[in-house]
Formats: sequence, structure tokens, C-alpha cells
Amino acid sequence: MIYDLIIIGGGPAGITAGIYAGRQRMKTLLITKEFGGQIAKKATEVCNYPGFERISGEELINRFVEQLKKQESVEIKFSEVGKIEKKENVFTVRTTSKEEILGRTVIIATGADPRPLEVPGEKEFIGRGVSYCVICDGPLFKNKKVAIIGGGNAGFEAAIFMTKYADKIYILESTAEVKADAENQREVNSSNKIEVMTNVTVKEIKGDSFVDSLIYLDNNSKKKKVLEVQGVFIEIGNQPATSLAKGLVDFTQRDEIIVEPETFQTKTPGLFAVGDNNSGPYKQIVTAAGEGCKAALAAHDYLRGLKEKNV
Amino acid sequence: MIYDLIIIGGGPAGITAGIYAGRQRMKTLLITKEFGGQIAKKATEVCNYPGFERISGEELINRFVEQLKKQESVEIKFSEVGKIEKKENVFTVRTTSKEEILGRTVIIATGADPRPLEVPGEKEFIGRGVSYCVICDGPLFKNKKVAIIGGGNAGFEAAIFMTKYADKIYILESTAEVKADAENQREVNSSNKIEVMTNVTVKEIKGDSFVDSLIYLDNNSKKKKVLEVQGVFIEIGNQPATSLAKGLVDFTQRDEIIVEPETFQTKTPGLFAVGDNNSGPYKQIVTAAGEGCKAALAAHDYLRGLKEKNV
Repeated sequence: MIYDLIIIGGGPAGITAGIYAGRQRMKTLLITKEFGGQIAKKATEVCNYPGFERISGEELINRFVEQLKKQESVEIKFSEVGKIEKKENVFTVRTTSKEEILGRTVIIATGADPRPLEVPGEKEFIGRGVSYCVICDGPLFKNKKVAIIGGGNAGFEAAIFMTKYADKIYILESTAEVKADAENQREVNSSNKIEVMTNVTVKEIKGDSFVDSLIYLDNNSKKKKVLEVQGVFIEIGNQPATSLAKGLVDFTQRDEIIVEPETFQTKTPGLFAVGDNNSGPYKQIVTAAGEGCKAALAAHDYLRGLKEKNV
Repeated sequence: MIYDLIIIGGGPAGITAGIYAGRQRMKTLLITKEFGGQIAKKATEVCNYPGFERISGEELINRFVEQLKKQESVEIKFSEVGKIEKKENVFTVRTTSKEEILGRTVIIATGADPRPLEVPGEKEFIGRGVSYCVICDGPLFKNKKVAIIGGGNAGFEAAIFMTKYADKIYILESTAEVKADAENQREVNSSNKIEVMTNVTVKEIKGDSFVDSLIYLDNNSKKKKVLEVQGVFIEIGNQPATSLAKGLVDFTQRDEIIVEPETFQTKTPGLFAVGDNNSGPYKQIVTAAGEGCKAALAAHDYLRGLKEKNV
């Protein structure tokens, strides 16, 4: 049995690809560890997905999943993929539990994982003060002082979220300018709990059984300083989950899969990459969904091409 | 007064651009004749926009519009644009009522109109058997007989798509020869559900509350005949609404605006085109929305670039 399409990943990009593959009646398997991608883990409230003025990340993803399950030609499998290979015109998708699944096209929609800061103390204090997810762990820091590392939208949104719990929130940005959008900046500036520190580089996270401080370099004075905090949230971007595609695709310096930007096909015909793991700019829920749609339709066209060539 | 961004068009692409421009606090004007684009006109029921298993085109667009209206930095103007010009770093948008509006960036999201057949019954039965979009409405015609008007690639592809749903599909082409490519012809000929009729001119679409038949002229015998169908899909081409951009952009042979596919910028810096009017493939509601989002964020980046250069 060879699937028309195997989709790897259950976030907005993968699910939308599944909905469109279903509409095209493509025999499809969607493989994912769990549904939701980063929305479920990170987005408490989504205000920028067109169609919903304000919706919880969990509810939005549940709506996506319900719609996916209505597609008769799409099966869902909860598993993890280790490796993709291609021989002649058939892809073999190997799960980490040693299953082999065959497909004529594959869409990689595995998203991205939080990028680590890579300073002493970071790994040691994960779960004991260090976190990559305010939604998961924020409530544990009620009435505490916390640092958010990263002055982009993710860092600012994490800080705004933490005003519900923490007494004091520092945003630490290593460059001279924050990169958050104007709306997020306005909200942060109007909070008396949040302090933005630019030109500071975190050097170490310290503590005993739990985090009690971090050491940072003031890039202007070149002096090391101590910031007393009980929590450190790291929001410096993502690491695309793309190692499964090694050998079949080219990568950017940031490990993103390089794609052709109209169809999202990689350098391997029939293999596509959509959402947070590809080389395109502007990563949003609606852009991930749009890319999933385009790749599913492109996979459909590719299959027709194979059929015409009689291969 | 110079806007940061002028958006022209009120379909999913333009509205999503507006929502994202609002999130960035860009001083924005969205100009449109009316809201809805092709959704309002064509899609009776939308089943493929992620987040909504089934929603009327009208309700979906209303939800988009409500969300747009929540953006404090976005104004809405009901008007029609005749021409866009650029001098130094400022665009002048001229409405057909001779107003001149200034902006530093412009997103063209004027969409495309399906070319109408212009026969009696066509307008009356839109949403009640007459459609311009098999992907939107095809599944509603399960086990029915349908006519596809137009013997080009769009008509043939629509017919192939409809074999998944309809029992019988007629392709009606007014000239002596179909214009679809060989592969589409091969696929159509290999289906026992599709019948191609050439040299026939549709004269009228008839029905009671829903379409039940169409009247066509057999150009050889010069006789009028009746064809019993419950659905009529008109696939005689699209007209991208792009003439307002003449002089600033390059066009494809089909009058689509040629864009850079990651940012949707045209050959004129600061001028973007998203949705049905650009040269990209795969035109769906969710892809239009994704493109609107990306162009708004790209316009924001472009403005930051201008600011940095102090122009």
C-alpha cells in the first residue's frame, strides 16, 4: 500500500494540508506526535487568525482537528518520524518505532522547537526556574521576579502574559533595539511591571536547588551584573525540526529547509516543507495554513504529472 | 497626511493585510467598493477554510470584517481606485471620484472576477445551482448531473475534479475544438462520467428554486436543445482586476501582476499584490489570507528600511 501523500506534523500547516488533500480525495496519512504544534503549547489567546477576533490556542486547534477528521480519505497516526528516504518515485517514511510507511509525496510540517540560549545553568535548571513556555509554566511564578530573554514578539508576548502572575518582569535583549511589533511595545510600555533592558547579554543562570539569579554583560559598560530572578523564560526563536529530511533537502544556516516559494517543494521532487520549518519569512498561523494548502495542491499536481508520465 | 499603508480591496487578502497592519499600528487606509471579494459572490458554503467546518461565505467575510474594524489604526473607505502613481517615495492613489490619497506603501488586493457567461438565468441562480468554483461548491453536487461551461484547461480540470462527486458531467464548448491541453483531454476521455460537447452555445439557465436544466444552441443543426442538469459551473476564465497598476508593475499574459513570491512585492518597491490578482498559483481563501499577512509584514519591514535610510 502506497499513500498518495504522507503529511508529517499536526500543527496548522500540516492540518491544513490534510484538509486540502482530503478535498482532493488523495489517499493521505497524517503522522504526528500530537496535535497543535506551537499554538497548543504557547498561544494562550490568538487574536490575529482571520475569522476569530479572540480564541484560545487550544480551541482553535481543536476546530482545525475536527475539520481534518471529516476528510474521508485522510488517516491519522500518532507516531514520530525519524527519517525520510526516496527510491525511484516512492518515499519511505520511517518512524522511530521502526515502522516503514510508503508514499508518493511527502509534506514536512514538523514546525520548530524553542532555541536554547546555551549558557551555563540553562540545562541544569530546566523545570527548576528555566522554561521555554510561559503558558505551560508561567503560573508557577506567582508574585515572583522573572526574566524573559529575547526582545522580539515572542518575548514581549511572554512578558505581557506574565503580568498576570509575576510581580516584576525584565525583558533582556542583546541588541540595541527590540524587534517586537508596535502593538506589543505599546502594551509592554503601559505596564508598570515590565522593564525592558537592551544591549545586555545573558552569561549564566545561577541558583541552588532553584534559579535565584542570572549574570549578564552590560554591552555598553562591558561590566558583568547580577539580576535577581526566580524564573528565566527563554524566547530567542526556534530551531526548525528538520533533521528527518537530511540528504533530501538543502538547509539555510539556521537549519530551515530551502523551498521553492510558490509550491513549497524542496530540491527533491514530491517532497514539500511548510510552516515554521522552511526558509520563508513571516511565520504566523495563517501563513502556515496558507502554505499547507498550497503544498497539498502542488502535491496533487505533482501526482498528476507522475501519472501522465506513467511512472 | 501620508498613510503608512493603503490597501486596495476588501476580500480575504486585503482584510487580512489590514488586520496585520493594525497589529503593527501602521496608519492604514483600506479602500474597497464593498467587502467580500469572490467569497461573497461565489462561495455559497465554505468548507475548506481552516477553523470552520462549514460556514456561509457571507458569515465568514462578516467575521473577517468585524475583526478588521477592531484595529484602531485602520480606516475604511468605500470607494473605487482608478490609478496608482509613485513619485519619489510616495504613492498617490486616485479614486474614480477624483480624490487623491497618499501612502508610503500600497497593497493591491483587488482580486479577480470570474468572467460571466451573460445569459438569462445565470445571475438569478448563483448559489442555487450556478457556480464559478468547483473546489468551493463541487461537493454539493454529489450524485447529480452538472454542466461545465468552457472547454479550456479550467473547464477540463473542473470536470475532472467533479468526477469525485457528480454522476454525469457535460463539458460545453462553443467552438469546434476544445482548448484544454493534451493531458487534460486524455484524463477527460478516460472517464466514463464526462461527455464533451463542442459547437454548442449556452443560451439560458433554467429552474424553479434550483437549476434543473440549461438551453443550448447546437451550432451545426442550428437547433435549440435542453440539457437536464442540477448544476452549472462557468469556467470561461478570470479577469484579474489589475489595470489600476499599469506602469508600475509587470503583467503575465493573463493580466496577473508579477510578484516576488516570498514578500509579494512587485517590481516597484513598496508596492505589493496579493490574492487572486497576482502571478502565484493556487488561489484559495486561506492562501489569499496568508499572502495578505505576509505582504503587510513585508510593507512594515519596507517602512522600517525607509526610516533607517532617513527618507
